[in-house]
Amino acid sequence: MPTFKVTLAYDGTDYVGWQRQANGVSIQGLIEDALRVLDGRDVRVTGAGRTDAGVHALGQVAAFTIARVLSPDAVLRALNAHLPGAIRVLAAEEAAPTFHPRFGARAKTYRYRIWNGDVISPFERRYAWHLPGALDLDAMRAAARLVEGRHDFAAFQASGGSAATSEREVFASRVDFQSLTPHPQSPLLAYDISGAGFLRHMVRIIVGSLVEVGRGRQPAEWVGAVLASRDRTAAGPTAPAVGLFLVGVEYGGALAALS
Amino acid sequence: MPTFKVTLAYDGTDYVGWQRQANGVSIQGLIEDALRVLDGRDVRVTGAGRTDAGVHALGQVAAFTIARVLSPDAVLRALNAHLPGAIRVLAAEEAAPTFHPRFGARAKTYRYRIWNGDVISPFERRYAWHLPGALDLDAMRAAARLVEGRHDFAAFQASGGSAATSEREVFASRVDFQSLTPHPQSPLLAYDISGAGFLRHMVRIIVGSLVEVGRGRQPAEWVGAVLASRDRTAAGPTAPAVGLFLVGVEYGGALAALS
Repeated sequence: MPTFKVTLAYDGTDYVGWQRQANGVSIQGLIEDALRVLDGRDVRVTGAGRTDAGVHALGQVAAFTIARVLSPDAVLRALNAHLPGAIRVLAAEEAAPTFHPRFGARAKTYRYRIWNGDVISPFERRYAWHLPGALDLDAMRAAARLVEGRHDFAAFQASGGSAATSEREVFASRVDFQSLTPHPQSPLLAYDISGAGFLRHMVRIIVGSLVEVGRGRQPAEWVGAVLASRDRTAAGPTAPAVGLFLVGVEYGGALAALS
Repeated sequence: MPTFKVTLAYDGTDYVGWQRQANGVSIQGLIEDALRVLDGRDVRVTGAGRTDAGVHALGQVAAFTIARVLSPDAVLRALNAHLPGAIRVLAAEEAAPTFHPRFGARAKTYRYRIWNGDVISPFERRYAWHLPGALDLDAMRAAARLVEGRHDFAAFQASGGSAATSEREVFASRVDFQSLTPHPQSPLLAYDISGAGFLRHMVRIIVGSLVEVGRGRQPAEWVGAVLASRDRTAAGPTAPAVGLFLVGVEYGGALAALS
């Protein structure tokens, strides 16, 4: 009964999210369906991050145990043969039977992409939030740094989260323009955040709050006051799912991601 | 009756191509539909390049004359409000009534993108040809240069083209790896070709032939022999539409493209 750790990239546009649900097509559900064909029995897949509907992944990590004895490469090829092109297994390796992608994760990195131009490229419409108008990047940079460290992130948590505590540690929180071929002078802003764990909608509420600062509606320091308030109603709106990517998940060693 | 020149980007995946057809949705048809709403009458749109089904554009140029007196910016905003997100007007300006996007073009540039890795990124599946396996880039570079200059490109022309002559001038023909955020070490190959004009499927047949060289099935010099043969059956297969982009169209002055 070998256990496998797989690294996945997916375009979340057309799915209800990572987690299998009664209605709609989920990433987890499609992988479990493919494994049922491969293994001839029901296989349960666990993921490192339960990405919401419309959220993408460059380096989601998942694990499962199957009855058939197969090489990691055979598992990779069989899954990619069964999965739609919007979901790809980038890497597969054998893992200890005790490996758990979420509980074992030391750090996760998310990226949020904003298209800050009047007209969004058709090639970015599924992968970035279209937000025209002036943004004060220096103020956003300063505000982003204020969430680094260990804090109670209750103000940046959506209702319906299942976490026992809202304390989390953020290792890095940075925003900058990103060069984007074939648009070297692109109006694409990337916000990167890595941390030991994240609350429900935490990245999207932080981004919504940074945008309040970028638009000059709030000073950078306001983000610190929101954090201290522990009050969700004090923070900015939740940024849309379209711009969010799970970049990678870190375990004992190196970052398990294409970054 | 002002005439407008517009620069367009589009994701061609879901369309039958630039040209209006009896069956299926075309880029030209959607723009003409939007202009009918805007102008209250039938408006004919001409384009610089008649891109095929599935071919994309970063800088297609089109022109039309309307009865309403509107600013270029109002035309841009009205068209973008009516068009689907897969088609965007990037720029609009008034042009001389005699302006013709195709006959007036001095140069056009196309890019063909190849994903040369085992597993194609889900974010590239609509925008690159997935071609795993070793490619000899140096041989492809040498072969690409052989089509530069004025030649009879009959060997690189699909049947059904309407051109009176198959002689064309290619200004530059280059292939190289492309850095691609968020994949700095990306397996993405970009082939760029610019010329005074192109025959039907010319870029895609050149790419199909360069790939024969890259795979070691033919030496680089073979592309020169194919060119000299003027025989379509001597050339390689037609590369699929998915990887092809009309990058821009040049008129009197600067390149009218996002490049």
